[in-house]
Amino acid sequence: MIQRVEPPFSRFRDRLDPKVADWVFPYDSASRFDIALLGAPLSKTSISHSAAFRLPDAIRALFHSYSPYSVHHQMDLSERLRVADLGNVQMHLTDLALCQKWIEDAVYSYGETHAQPLVLLGGDHSITGAALLGLTRATKRTYGVIHFDAHHDVRNLEDGGRSNGTPFRTLLDSGAIAGRHVVQIGIRDYVNAKAYHAYVVQEGVTVVTARQVFRTGLAQVLEEAYAHVSKETDGVYVSFDMDVLDQSFVPGVPAPGPGGLTVWDALEALEWLGAKSNVQAVDFVCADPAQDVRDFTTRVATNLLLAFLAGKSLAKGANV
Amino acid sequence: MIQRVEPPFSRFRDRLDPKVADWVFPYDSASRFDIALLGAPLSKTSISHSAAFRLPDAIRALFHSYSPYSVHHQMDLSERLRVADLGNVQMHLTDLALCQKWIEDAVYSYGETHAQPLVLLGGDHSITGAALLGLTRATKRTYGVIHFDAHHDVRNLEDGGRSNGTPFRTLLDSGAIAGRHVVQIGIRDYVNAKAYHAYVVQEGVTVVTARQVFRTGLAQVLEEAYAHVSKETDGVYVSFDMDVLDQSFVPGVPAPGPGGLTVWDALEALEWLGAKSNVQAVDFVCADPAQDVRDFTTRVATNLLLAFLAGKSLAKGANV
Amino acid sequence: MIQRVEPPFSRFRDRLDPKVADWVFPYDSASRFDIALLGAPLSKTSISHSAAFRLPDAIRALFHSYSPYSVHHQMDLSERLRVADLGNVQMHLTDLALCQKWIEDAVYSYGETHAQPLVLLGGDHSITGAALLGLTRATKRTYGVIHFDAHHDVRNLEDGGRSNGTPFRTLLDSGAIAGRHVVQIGIRDYVNAKAYHAYVVQEGVTVVTARQVFRTGLAQVLEEAYAHVSKETDGVYVSFDMDVLDQSFVPGVPAPGPGGLTVWDALEALEWLGAKSNVQAVDFVCADPAQDVRDFTTRVATNLLLAFLAGKSLAKGANV
Amino acid sequence: MIQRVEPPFSRFRDRLDPKVADWVFPYDSASRFDIALLGAPLSKTSISHSAAFRLPDAIRALFHSYSPYSVHHQMDLSERLRVADLGNVQMHLTDLALCQKWIEDAVYSYGETHAQPLVLLGGDHSITGAALLGLTRATKRTYGVIHFDAHHDVRNLEDGGRSNGTPFRTLLDSGAIAGRHVVQIGIRDYVNAKAYHAYVVQEGVTVVTARQVFRTGLAQVLEEAYAHVSKETDGVYVSFDMDVLDQSFVPGVPAPGPGGLTVWDALEALEWLGAKSNVQAVDFVCADPAQDVRDFTTRVATNLLLAFLAGKSLAKGANV
Amino acid sequence: MIQRVEPPFSRFRDRLDPKVADWVFPYDSASRFDIALLGAPLSKTSISHSAAFRLPDAIRALFHSYSPYSVHHQMDLSERLRVADLGNVQMHLTDLALCQKWIEDAVYSYGETHAQPLVLLGGDHSITGAALLGLTRATKRTYGVIHFDAHHDVRNLEDGGRSNGTPFRTLLDSGAIAGRHVVQIGIRDYVNAKAYHAYVVQEGVTVVTARQVFRTGLAQVLEEAYAHVSKETDGVYVSFDMDVLDQSFVPGVPAPGPGGLTVWDALEALEWLGAKSNVQAVDFVCADPAQDVRDFTTRVATNLLLAFLAGKSLAKGANV
Amino acid sequence: MIQRVEPPFSRFRDRLDPKVADWVFPYDSASRFDIALLGAPLSKTSISHSAAFRLPDAIRALFHSYSPYSVHHQMDLSERLRVADLGNVQMHLTDLALCQKWIEDAVYSYGETHAQPLVLLGGDHSITGAALLGLTRATKRTYGVIHFDAHHDVRNLEDGGRSNGTPFRTLLDSGAIAGRHVVQIGIRDYVNAKAYHAYVVQEGVTVVTARQVFRTGLAQVLEEAYAHVSKETDGVYVSFDMDVLDQSFVPGVPAPGPGGLTVWDALEALEWLGAKSNVQAVDFVCADPAQDVRDFTTRVATNLLLAFLAGKSLAKGANV
Ligand SMILES: [Ca+2]
Ligand SMILES: [Ca+2]
Ligand SMILES: [Ca+2]
Ligand SMILES: [Ca+2]
Ligand SMILES: [Ca+2]
Ligand SMILES: [Ca+2]
Ligand SMILES: [Ca+2]
Ligand SMILES: [Ca+2]
Ligand SMILES: [Ca+2]
Ligand SMILES: [Ca+2]
Ligand SMILES: [Ca+2]
Ligand SMILES: [Ca+2]
Repeated sequence: MIQRVEPPFSRFRDRLDPKVADWVFPYDSASRFDIALLGAPLSKTSISHSAAFRLPDAIRALFHSYSPYSVHHQMDLSERLRVADLGNVQMHLTDLALCQKWIEDAVYSYGETHAQPLVLLGGDHSITGAALLGLTRATKRTYGVIHFDAHHDVRNLEDGGRSNGTPFRTLLDSGAIAGRHVVQIGIRDYVNAKAYHAYVVQEGVTVVTARQVFRTGLAQVLEEAYAHVSKETDGVYVSFDMDVLDQSFVPGVPAPGPGGLTVWDALEALEWLGAKSNVQAVDFVCADPAQDVRDFTTRVATNLLLAFLAGKSLAKGANV
Repeated sequence: MIQRVEPPFSRFRDRLDPKVADWVFPYDSASRFDIALLGAPLSKTSISHSAAFRLPDAIRALFHSYSPYSVHHQMDLSERLRVADLGNVQMHLTDLALCQKWIEDAVYSYGETHAQPLVLLGGDHSITGAALLGLTRATKRTYGVIHFDAHHDVRNLEDGGRSNGTPFRTLLDSGAIAGRHVVQIGIRDYVNAKAYHAYVVQEGVTVVTARQVFRTGLAQVLEEAYAHVSKETDGVYVSFDMDVLDQSFVPGVPAPGPGGLTVWDALEALEWLGAKSNVQAVDFVCADPAQDVRDFTTRVATNLLLAFLAGKSLAKGANV
Repeated sequence: MIQRVEPPFSRFRDRLDPKVADWVFPYDSASRFDIALLGAPLSKTSISHSAAFRLPDAIRALFHSYSPYSVHHQMDLSERLRVADLGNVQMHLTDLALCQKWIEDAVYSYGETHAQPLVLLGGDHSITGAALLGLTRATKRTYGVIHFDAHHDVRNLEDGGRSNGTPFRTLLDSGAIAGRHVVQIGIRDYVNAKAYHAYVVQEGVTVVTARQVFRTGLAQVLEEAYAHVSKETDGVYVSFDMDVLDQSFVPGVPAPGPGGLTVWDALEALEWLGAKSNVQAVDFVCADPAQDVRDFTTRVATNLLLAFLAGKSLAKGANV
Repeated sequence: MIQRVEPPFSRFRDRLDPKVADWVFPYDSASRFDIALLGAPLSKTSISHSAAFRLPDAIRALFHSYSPYSVHHQMDLSERLRVADLGNVQMHLTDLALCQKWIEDAVYSYGETHAQPLVLLGGDHSITGAALLGLTRATKRTYGVIHFDAHHDVRNLEDGGRSNGTPFRTLLDSGAIAGRHVVQIGIRDYVNAKAYHAYVVQEGVTVVTARQVFRTGLAQVLEEAYAHVSKETDGVYVSFDMDVLDQSFVPGVPAPGPGGLTVWDALEALEWLGAKSNVQAVDFVCADPAQDVRDFTTRVATNLLLAFLAGKSLAKGANV
Repeated sequence: MIQRVEPPFSRFRDRLDPKVADWVFPYDSASRFDIALLGAPLSKTSISHSAAFRLPDAIRALFHSYSPYSVHHQMDLSERLRVADLGNVQMHLTDLALCQKWIEDAVYSYGETHAQPLVLLGGDHSITGAALLGLTRATKRTYGVIHFDAHHDVRNLEDGGRSNGTPFRTLLDSGAIAGRHVVQIGIRDYVNAKAYHAYVVQEGVTVVTARQVFRTGLAQVLEEAYAHVSKETDGVYVSFDMDVLDQSFVPGVPAPGPGGLTVWDALEALEWLGAKSNVQAVDFVCADPAQDVRDFTTRVATNLLLAFLAGKSLAKGANV
Repeated sequence: MIQRVEPPFSRFRDRLDPKVADWVFPYDSASRFDIALLGAPLSKTSISHSAAFRLPDAIRALFHSYSPYSVHHQMDLSERLRVADLGNVQMHLTDLALCQKWIEDAVYSYGETHAQPLVLLGGDHSITGAALLGLTRATKRTYGVIHFDAHHDVRNLEDGGRSNGTPFRTLLDSGAIAGRHVVQIGIRDYVNAKAYHAYVVQEGVTVVTARQVFRTGLAQVLEEAYAHVSKETDGVYVSFDMDVLDQSFVPGVPAPGPGGLTVWDALEALEWLGAKSNVQAVDFVCADPAQDVRDFTTRVATNLLLAFLAGKSLAKGANV
């Protein structure tokens, strides 16, 4: 061979510094794993121009620079948790209803055959509608939902079909989930219509505004929300719209705004939720790498994902 | 007509989601209104290069994506408050003294004939000098001033005339306002000259540094400031320089710096101030859309404006 | 009224300098006009991420800074040509097949009732497929096509439906146009598949590569192309994909590349084509204002449009 | 002293590579020189938002990376020409009429006491009005003018005073220059009002459009223009608005557009003009470093300036 | 002289507003001073692409817009503290080991002859290794170290030599400092290898994670850290890696991440540390002006530096 | 398996559109190939800040969107030429002399064992020095060199070692190549020192300035250059510094400037050179993807590379 050459796309390696990319492995049906990742790269369904379809691979690209080690917990996630990457749901170029169906089918197919928790990487928020339709169809379970968002996401379906403004309308109207099993956290003023606030109230959804979070503290809000959605349900689905965070933390979200949650609280929240065995799925949506500043929003999403995995690791360790 | 066409510049409409742009209406002398907006698009008077003259229309452009509904208060501002948009003060291309005069004249003309509160959208901070000269001339009232800023803005007038560094010098020296009726909140270290600090102290101005705000809390600072400037005066004018906020929240201000106020506190403050019937005018200045990141600074300004209107709505509701 | 105010979004006006925006008027069925503009803001059908849907309104926004006067010809276009703006075809948020149909319907509806030339503002290149389907259905005419593009745009439809890679496949396979009536100008190396080159050759399409244009000169190429597509046909449709230009001139196209045509040649070409009464429609597609540098690509598109209108004005004047 | 330290703002130095910054020296009344540079950093007089006031110092900053050596001519400019930098005209912060006067005064003061050619670095085009008023007042000479521009720059003065749209109106109306002594080169379609074209024609100005330049070639156009403006006059003033170049070469001009002159032709033109002893002044205006891409526009301006100095060097050498 | 001209690179001056640039003076061996600045512009040693070598001069450039006055303390730093700027350590273009040696030599040379505190402006973090080697060699003292960083910076030296990932490895392995005299503050999860956490623990280093800082408060953490590193030592060295701050505050660091310290806490911390006479050196590293947003990161670094100098001023005042 | 999923980093595939990435294959010693690619990702040796080390992988990333088909020649390169990708030369993080040595060793190792032409992807221009040292050492041949560049690149080695300013100094002084076998094409005024021009003239190098290229035409210049360097030599090495092109075509080069060669000429030139069997190596250097605009410079480099391969394909075809 030629002397001193290495493969393309190599980067500086420190022999003592394994990366998340060395830990997460491609799914195959034979391998055992504890939790799975699935990309749902759909964002042509967004109301505003969005390249959120790039988020799953943008997160994976960052796996090459993150370590699986938590100094805070003195815990190596890679020693506790096997994480399988299922890949991305295939997308049709122009038939967006088919894209929704394929996401639903992929999650259905996963849910039918696997009990391990699932992490979905959007894509825009419409994927949550598809995913929960698939999951409930597969598992026949009743899910509680903790929905982090600045927006209610229950727009009418007549004015544009299943977009990123509609996932919870789709889910509530179809009966896949029940309003009394849903808590929305971080809802902001002046970006939601009165009619949609009225709708969620009427459906029995619990709404916690961003300002209430600031007054009460996210930890307490979350504890109550978790208790609420765990009642009467078989499992909890966490849906995290990145725009729930104050715009100063997430320059790449398509719908930024001030007055949102802080990144410090969100990181604690995801670890806390990860540690609950009841939480069986989480998604991260509505971050657009094409509009980001130096990948800051993708970095936040990746850290939230790792925080969730750390929670799972902590819980697992404790159960041994 | 041609099938399936709509006018230029249309955007996605959800029939149940009215926008701020549907609520605010152009002023005409016949219409009744509760509060008025006026743009003062002057920023050639800025010391540093600034396109703050673009802010009024940048805020109006965002009115098309904001809702008049506060989820937090379960209150539709558009049901309580009639908001008239007066338009922008005309600017001369090269005669900046005339620009100042025209701002003063416009506010004078408004103040002579209307008692409703006025929201001024700068432009740079020099417009506050012009506006308060016009307002005091029109109403013959004594105004207290709450001035949010990183800077004292009392530079000498010999070294450059009436710029964005001088509004309070203009006002104090002319006797339009008195130092003992002024509180400056958010003043920062290392961006103010000793001589100007000495000047405001000598004039009897109350100064609250950004660090004091952090220690005391803005709510308490504001309560004391409001009490102070309400004494002996006939009304309160609030002047909000966007650079009082920490630079992480306002990437588009011409004079950014760290260590400033937070956006969460500022939003609460403007709502609180809006609810005081004594507060008869507010301005937002020194945000440059041309240097902004994804309109974040314009978004903050718009949210502060809506918070102020929410305060007015709350107060009005309470008075019914 | 309040002194010295003017409406929002006003700008500096020179009383002797009328603008294109003062000349072009909104279509209504009663007004007489010589040529019509129609926006087709569809780009979710693009293979690469594109906000080309913003182009029609971006061009219209520039109408406020362009003059209708050609110094070169000492000709005021606004004195010769009445230009009606039909607006934009309405788009569905998520049903892209419906979007194609609505474009086809709008052009059909126009073509059924009007004989005046039509300028289409894309959108991505998929709109050409829809537009020519509508036009041929309405007029029952046989069209020759001059297609400026770096790409053949005849991809198979199985792999993604009607996208910006397929308009001429749609048109040739459907029989709406015949290959022998088509000339493609500016095709570039290394961005077209061998199979698609074989397809167009087999269909009888004439292909002129960008390199041939450089050797022969665009004027001569165009004269021959025009002669070729005018034979046997009832009219000529010009489709101008902005990426036919060298990337140095069009920083905002989604598929940029070096080695393309120059902007000087293109401006001359569009004026020359405009002057041919046979040319009954033109479209400008695949420029994305969101990826542009200081609106350079939108400026080029606007100048090409005005050059085309200048051609029409020259022809009209000559016919008087 | 401390070992191994060097002053702040040092950069890599190659001992054999002297720079333009080592050659150009600060003017003092005692030093002999052959040509002088003067900055006129005024751009608040611009119709569109412009930081062209930064150009003089941006060019000077580049002097640290340019060499005074022409490989093409095998000529070291620094061996032939002594270049004095007068500095920048002082600007008032808010009194723009005073700024114009100070530019006029500075040029007057220079012209009264020095016969060497002057290079003016704008600033926007309004400085040409001020400079030529000062120059003609000082020297009592009749100047021919070669004006490179996309625009006539003869707007009425009523609608905004002396802006960058008016310098030639100021000069023609005041009688400082005569229309028959002026040639405008590079005028573009669709960015000039009919009324102003009529005005310059009536004043006897010769107009060469950008398209004529392409057909005739700039070398021949220039030769004829030079012959024309040299007749009946005592000297030639060259005014170079950077926007005469096609926008692809000058991303930083406030008024970019396609179809302009090429940078190759412009470089040859400035060297050719520099070699004419008759050319006694040149200005470079309307390039905004704040809107530039990687200093490309400032680089072009710097190269044009050096080309002019090379012309002077060639002429001087020939005269020895 | 020519009327109304001023030197190049002048800017608006307010006669009553002296700047930091007027206060800090170039070092010469004769002048008395209280504290010294030294730039160490080395960043080719960085693992990720970094222009941190530009930071020292970027900070100095900002000295022209900062005032030496603290409104909060009503204290003029320039009346209390004489600050000498030593300049920058010379860098070799391609021999990076020589660069390290020259930094070590410069600090050694300074430390041998001066007892005043030293502020080092990096450059990347590798300069801390060189600086402390030089300082300990010169003074023969034992230093405690407070190390603000998201990262341990103790990578093995085999895989790339002395880079910005290795300074504390260099220092601990060489015995220049002892692990028990080091506190690392702000260490973050998922960006440190398990092996390096194990290494610092084994070396006796105290580690405080970013999350612990949030829970305990930086003031208390710092007090304990200071007490710890002051024991058994002759002086304290503070090393501040800008990436210890949350990425929302420092857009220009080469290794940004969420969950970091806040800028408000950091400013208080540096002032507090400055006031400790024991703190004899501080460095600021790993901020890259080329990747920054509107100089925000350089501004933070400058404010941290001024906060440190304010601490020194406060302490000095108290000692008089 | 899970339904409807595909691997991460998949993209839209058209079954009839194979890409360059499908054609170029990783080198292994067993495979037959006609030409090889080798990345030399070194740019810490640059005088100005440069991330040119990213170019090799940036080009490879574009291989996924380029087709191996030339419409102009109706030739599928993938049917004629087998292209092996050797990967990248390994780089040391901090020992830049070792990096140079490893590049030399890799090329030596290749040249010792393979006779097929080599394409080197820099990196900065210092890699040409290393590569030609390795190549001449391996093959013992005498090489003629065609060097496209704005710069002579013969700086003295005392002031900074082997940087991107020195490759031809290294080569000429060492005797690896002889000046009379070198032609430099595209040298520009005001960016080269007189001393270095004198040096190359003295060494017998032929210099063709950019302005001469414009007057003579690149085709003729190249023919003469090729004839000149082919005499007395055993093969030709082509070194292409991307900054030889006018800055309007290559926004990402570290040393941009106006007045350079055009991209159209360069593409023709590289194809022409590729077709010469004598040309045994080519390199592309000094393009920095981190400073680029929308990958335009990387696109130009990729097109130049493909043009060279097209030349090789043409020649090969002809030889069959
Ligand atoms: Ca959502
Ligand atoms: Ca949302
Ligand atoms: Ca202010
Ligand atoms: Ca301020
Ligand atoms: Ca196309
Ligand atoms: Ca195309
Ligand atoms: Ca002009
Ligand atoms: Ca102009
Ligand atoms: Ca560090
Ligand atoms: Ca660090
Ligand atoms: Ca070179
Ligand atoms: Ca070069």
